[in-house]
Amino acid sequence: MIQLESIGAAAKRAASALANASTARKDAALLSIADALEAHAADILSANREDVEAARASGMSPSMLDRLSLSEARIGGMAAGVREVAALADPVGRVLSGSTLSCGLEMEKITVPLGVIGIIFEARPNVTSDAAALCLKSGNACILRGGKEAIRSNTAIANVMRAALGAAGLDENCICLIEDTDRETATAMMRLNRYIDCLIPRGGAGLIRSVVENATVPVIETGVGNCHAYVEKTADIAMAAEIVFNAKTSRPSVCNALETLLVDEAIAETALPAIAARLKEKNVELRGCPRTCAILPDAVPACENDYEIEFLDYILAVKVVSGLDEAIEHIRRYSSHHSECIVTRDLAAARRFAREVDSAAVYVNASTRFTDGGVFGLGAEIGISTQKLHARGPMGLEALVSYKYVLYGDGQVR
Amino acid sequence: MIQLESIGAAAKRAASALANASTARKDAALLSIADALEAHAADILSANREDVEAARASGMSPSMLDRLSLSEARIGGMAAGVREVAALADPVGRVLSGSTLSCGLEMEKITVPLGVIGIIFEARPNVTSDAAALCLKSGNACILRGGKEAIRSNTAIANVMRAALGAAGLDENCICLIEDTDRETATAMMRLNRYIDCLIPRGGAGLIRSVVENATVPVIETGVGNCHAYVEKTADIAMAAEIVFNAKTSRPSVCNALETLLVDEAIAETALPAIAARLKEKNVELRGCPRTCAILPDAVPACENDYEIEFLDYILAVKVVSGLDEAIEHIRRYSSHHSECIVTRDLAAARRFAREVDSAAVYVNASTRFTDGGVFGLGAEIGISTQKLHARGPMGLEALVSYKYVLYGDGQVR
Repeated sequence: MIQLESIGAAAKRAASALANASTARKDAALLSIADALEAHAADILSANREDVEAARASGMSPSMLDRLSLSEARIGGMAAGVREVAALADPVGRVLSGSTLSCGLEMEKITVPLGVIGIIFEARPNVTSDAAALCLKSGNACILRGGKEAIRSNTAIANVMRAALGAAGLDENCICLIEDTDRETATAMMRLNRYIDCLIPRGGAGLIRSVVENATVPVIETGVGNCHAYVEKTADIAMAAEIVFNAKTSRPSVCNALETLLVDEAIAETALPAIAARLKEKNVELRGCPRTCAILPDAVPACENDYEIEFLDYILAVKVVSGLDEAIEHIRRYSSHHSECIVTRDLAAARRFAREVDSAAVYVNASTRFTDGGVFGLGAEIGISTQKLHARGPMGLEALVSYKYVLYGDGQVR
Repeated sequence: MIQLESIGAAAKRAASALANASTARKDAALLSIADALEAHAADILSANREDVEAARASGMSPSMLDRLSLSEARIGGMAAGVREVAALADPVGRVLSGSTLSCGLEMEKITVPLGVIGIIFEARPNVTSDAAALCLKSGNACILRGGKEAIRSNTAIANVMRAALGAAGLDENCICLIEDTDRETATAMMRLNRYIDCLIPRGGAGLIRSVVENATVPVIETGVGNCHAYVEKTADIAMAAEIVFNAKTSRPSVCNALETLLVDEAIAETALPAIAARLKEKNVELRGCPRTCAILPDAVPACENDYEIEFLDYILAVKVVSGLDEAIEHIRRYSSHHSECIVTRDLAAARRFAREVDSAAVYVNASTRFTDGGVFGLGAEIGISTQKLHARGPMGLEALVSYKYVLYGDGQVR
């Protein structure tokens, strides 16, 4: 805890200076970080090998081991990511609006960094450099707390970045890593209001829930995607099959992948077999309501929980609904408000779905897989917000700034 | 608790419909609420008299009794406030940006209501109609929870507003009041994530702290103002005296009032007596550092706590500082980041203060009393945010909306 307190204080001090660093200086530091990551790849890989060996010995699953493992190429990718962030426009110091008040005060509303951003993440060490680069570019110090499986890798990466910051003339405490990976330290970090301005958890539903439950620092919830596709009765069935196939199978482990399919009863008899045939190419397991199971003999009966969770796998929950009302009501009840889509040829249905479905991204006749900071034109992305305060959907650099009002006068009183 | 759960569910349902209500319908409902408040003034006043008598019997202070008391004129003011909100532009449904993505998807970023807003407030019954009107105009349902001293008044006001909503064809659960005023219910409300999208506490520092400490629902902190004025060494001393006098004494009980004066040592000998003479007109008590007390024989010695708190009274903490660095450092350490000002003739000092002081409103040569939604051109105000996430400084209707992305395609997959 003493470590945490002193890290918090150091990050806060670094943030004050960084908030007023020029774009040129921040960009130079980012480029020097990218170079240093490549130059010290051997040290990082050696630390990573220890993490991977320990994880394998403790029985980590192959897909998790893959997320944890670095390689020369992956470190090259991390460095390239940092260089991309350097090339983005600086979000700090933009004048959002301005006016002269009736008393003669000249007012400007100007973007400023948030201050110190806490990032709590799980086993992917590349988050260390991705998140730190986005924070640095937006003038924020960051305090990173990764999972214990990756602690040697994260420490090596953070040390390389901190040394590069120092060499570039910035305070190395602009990037801080908490090396204590016990749960108590994470909980204490979530309550460090004196030093941390905003907390962004990056990981699975369990991590997000724990942060929301325990944090007193303001949180931006990210990344839980229970996404729906609704095939309306006028839908082009071939288009529906392509969209569902893409949304479910192009990358099932990500948050914008499809988890539940809703089909209008008026076309279920033809649409469901066509969609199921396409999904069979990837052996997708279908968990259906009784009407779905009556139409599709291969489907297994769904339970309530199947509509509530993210499978993040080749599994899809399916339900036959009576129409648009029931589809919207189902989404309202079960969705994590990330991304949903309707397939339809009916203008009124499309407009009503777009208006009434309350999710970060609502698609008409397109796959939910497009919800992404890069695709949406935001540059790199620090996460996808599923809450409505501050930022919603993919969050780029703009989500990492606040604003202040600056007013110049010549003695005005009220 | 059962009451709270059912209120939450009812408000959430009402919010879904209200989110898509037309501006015309919302405005008609607001005008009908304003008329109903005036038409039922006698009922509201009768309930208020009971609150005031009970509060007087329990020994409430005269200034608190004044905040609690309604009159025909004050109810007229509440109705006028509701009509002003009706006249503001609708913040919902604005297209913030839009583009056609390279794959042909047409994307729009559109403002939407937050959903259900929880407001926790203290003894002022007029907050009931002010807050409800702002929420309604921005398409949000609200759940109000006022102090127990005002419960009869709040219930009467809420009943009048709910009946008017019904008569105007909107769900009366767009405005909900929690009649349980015990602490457990308030705490449970702060953790009602399933139904409440955002919590705005309006009240003193104790209330705000309790909400930040206990809430799992996202919170917007408001209204704590430990505001500073720094009289720099090149300041026009007469201007400094006027600004300090205005900021401290024009309305000491509000959050944009001045609480601490910092004076550069180079001009302390002349500036402090001039400022003190002006403040003496209102018998302001000065609590000073040792150097202040040496210059001003009437000042009493300040303790650490005097720099930390809001007096909200005719009391001012005073400190002599060695220059801009120490002034900025003092503000960084003690400020609640609401409003600060510098009095100076030096361009570099003004620019550095404006850049480095990290508060919602930073003034050069003007009183901190200008920090106000009306003055800043935002129309009515639901509070003044002292946090950096989502909204900062005075919050108008724009602070009560989020946004979503709507994307139209013709079969795009990724």
